[in-house]
Amino acid sequence: MSPLSNSTPLHSSLENPFSLTDLPPQETGLVIIDLQSIKRNYRTFEKLIAPATIAPVIKANAYGLGMIPVCETLNQEGASEFFVATIDEGIALKKAVPSVNVFVLYGLFANTIDIFFEHQLIPVLNTIEQIQRWNQFAALKNTKLSALIHFDTGMSRTGLTAKEAAWLINNKHAFENLNILYIMSHLACSEVPSHPMNQKQKDAFNKFSKAFPEIKRSLAASTLIKMDATYHNDMARIGYGLYGFCYNTPEINLENCLHVYSRIVQLRDVIPGDPVGYGATYIVEQPGRLATLSMGYADGYHRFLHNYKTYVYIGPYKAYLVGRISMDFCVVDVTHIPEEYLYEGAWVEMIGQHIKVADLVSGTDFVPHEVPISLGNRYHRHYLK
Amino acid sequence: MSPLSNSTPLHSSLENPFSLTDLPPQETGLVIIDLQSIKRNYRTFEKLIAPATIAPVIKANAYGLGMIPVCETLNQEGASEFFVATIDEGIALKKAVPSVNVFVLYGLFANTIDIFFEHQLIPVLNTIEQIQRWNQFAALKNTKLSALIHFDTGMSRTGLTAKEAAWLINNKHAFENLNILYIMSHLACSEVPSHPMNQKQKDAFNKFSKAFPEIKRSLAASTLIKMDATYHNDMARIGYGLYGFCYNTPEINLENCLHVYSRIVQLRDVIPGDPVGYGATYIVEQPGRLATLSMGYADGYHRFLHNYKTYVYIGPYKAYLVGRISMDFCVVDVTHIPEEYLYEGAWVEMIGQHIKVADLVSGTDFVPHEVPISLGNRYHRHYLK
Repeated sequence: MSPLSNSTPLHSSLENPFSLTDLPPQETGLVIIDLQSIKRNYRTFEKLIAPATIAPVIKANAYGLGMIPVCETLNQEGASEFFVATIDEGIALKKAVPSVNVFVLYGLFANTIDIFFEHQLIPVLNTIEQIQRWNQFAALKNTKLSALIHFDTGMSRTGLTAKEAAWLINNKHAFENLNILYIMSHLACSEVPSHPMNQKQKDAFNKFSKAFPEIKRSLAASTLIKMDATYHNDMARIGYGLYGFCYNTPEINLENCLHVYSRIVQLRDVIPGDPVGYGATYIVEQPGRLATLSMGYADGYHRFLHNYKTYVYIGPYKAYLVGRISMDFCVVDVTHIPEEYLYEGAWVEMIGQHIKVADLVSGTDFVPHEVPISLGNRYHRHYLK
Repeated sequence: MSPLSNSTPLHSSLENPFSLTDLPPQETGLVIIDLQSIKRNYRTFEKLIAPATIAPVIKANAYGLGMIPVCETLNQEGASEFFVATIDEGIALKKAVPSVNVFVLYGLFANTIDIFFEHQLIPVLNTIEQIQRWNQFAALKNTKLSALIHFDTGMSRTGLTAKEAAWLINNKHAFENLNILYIMSHLACSEVPSHPMNQKQKDAFNKFSKAFPEIKRSLAASTLIKMDATYHNDMARIGYGLYGFCYNTPEINLENCLHVYSRIVQLRDVIPGDPVGYGATYIVEQPGRLATLSMGYADGYHRFLHNYKTYVYIGPYKAYLVGRISMDFCVVDVTHIPEEYLYEGAWVEMIGQHIKVADLVSGTDFVPHEVPISLGNRYHRHYLK
């Protein structure tokens, strides 16, 4: 039998090490989500924009990390307003953490008004029709209902058009029964701070929102770490920045919260001429050794990664991908790695201490969170609290 | 309120139409999996290779479709042998459908021998060490244990090397306590039938397996629809072909089993110069109309699709993607589509009657099943039985 060093803590670098002895032996992967890192990132953003506040974005299961544990963690830290995309996400969140305000980005979708009301969800109103619908419903119920108004300044995706926004400025009674918590807009090109779209969108947003001086405003998202304070306003909607799925700036250190480990399924000696993977796109040139790992594109390790110099860590050693990524496997070159690290069942860092999510897609056309969002259900999950 | 034609069956083309009235109004997407299509595809393969048999490949939750319903359906159709990747998949399958033989591709992983035995899972033995381990265990238990032996002929991923295979030919006693159901290998380049690797792998496989004339053999997978009968052997392992995630040949018509519908979240009039999506990569040229749809890369509609002429169907009309795909949304140009089809909440075909999974990735570097495998949990699922 191969030695599986079950007694070695995998996570010696973390405050709260996690031991492999807790895992059933058949586990093929391990996802550790460090909620302490998310907390510290939250505080980093808080300091950066105080007195403005932060509303964490936890849609799509908190970018694959787990909506409920992330919400509970940040709620303890003081966050009380959260963004989700869909109504079902909102319902699940309200059931688990009833005290928080849940903002639903999809808005007051057709025929869902009763569901918003029943579950006390707060719609992001994206059209004049949605504003009128929610306003009439509030009148009918003889109450004030909360909402956000979303003005689109350059995404052409959701939110009021410029024409609708102009109409609203002259028809403020359209939301007379509503308690508008924020007017919001979303930047399209803020990954590139010098992009002329940013200034243009900010100007349009300011012009609109200043017609409603009594209402709070929200424009910035995670990219605010690169933008000046004129983008901050009253509240920022922070998603991937909280999870550390981005590059840091010289001033701001966001911690990676995600650690993904696969295992060595098989080791093999190879000789020059041996082809590796589908399409035989990689041919071995020197006598060496390969390790087949238990992670493939069914686990979010997308096939596009094979085109780049993607690597993993086995102990303190880098090992580069060779050949195409399969559905359930990928293969790395381990020729240079000492024998003691190489055994069937050995744990391999795919994302974590040495490899941030952003590193994986560096130099590609992809965004970091495309990997965690597809992590799937085959890996054991553990939350460090 | 917008009219949502709840009474119109979405699936008039199918034998067993599914009505939208069954859905809660807040649903943002609908996945219909037509198990009848999977059955018919199974029969198509069966006819093609009889008297050889088919072992369906249902790993990774049957490529995102649902492992248990797919297994139950094909078991009724006569399939009794199924492939999964991981041990946990195997345990879940055996619990749900105890009568079937479950072959675990990851093999007799370190320290998992008791789990294989307890759950009556059948390992695909990928190394000499695994063969010896299972053989010794059988002796210890004083019984015959079933297994497959996997000989790698050109993937360098899992399975015996040529050297190990040569050793085994001279050491047949190494599996004297085992009941070897099949010797298998896997083709690396069978998407291209003329690729010289195919003949080479077949020759190596034949040479090895003929040393064990009493053991059945398996080499072919879904691509057998393009290959001649010398590749068929005794059993074929069929995954995406059963689900119709491939192009048909002139002779063989495999049915698409997957239908994915998103909804129109918002409609917007646009004018020349309006930018669409992140990075403002698309700028509107003519006055027109856009629809924002409730499907993004969190739902498997991967971001890479925006680089190609990807389209959806709204009623009988094609609508092309514009701008980048976001996490929860994508945007299509609907300028040319009649008003009656365009309303908040309208259902939109992303994959289905007009758009096969293979169409989505046509002309790209990607494989069809990368989309369904990441479908995620936000869409309502319905199985047509």
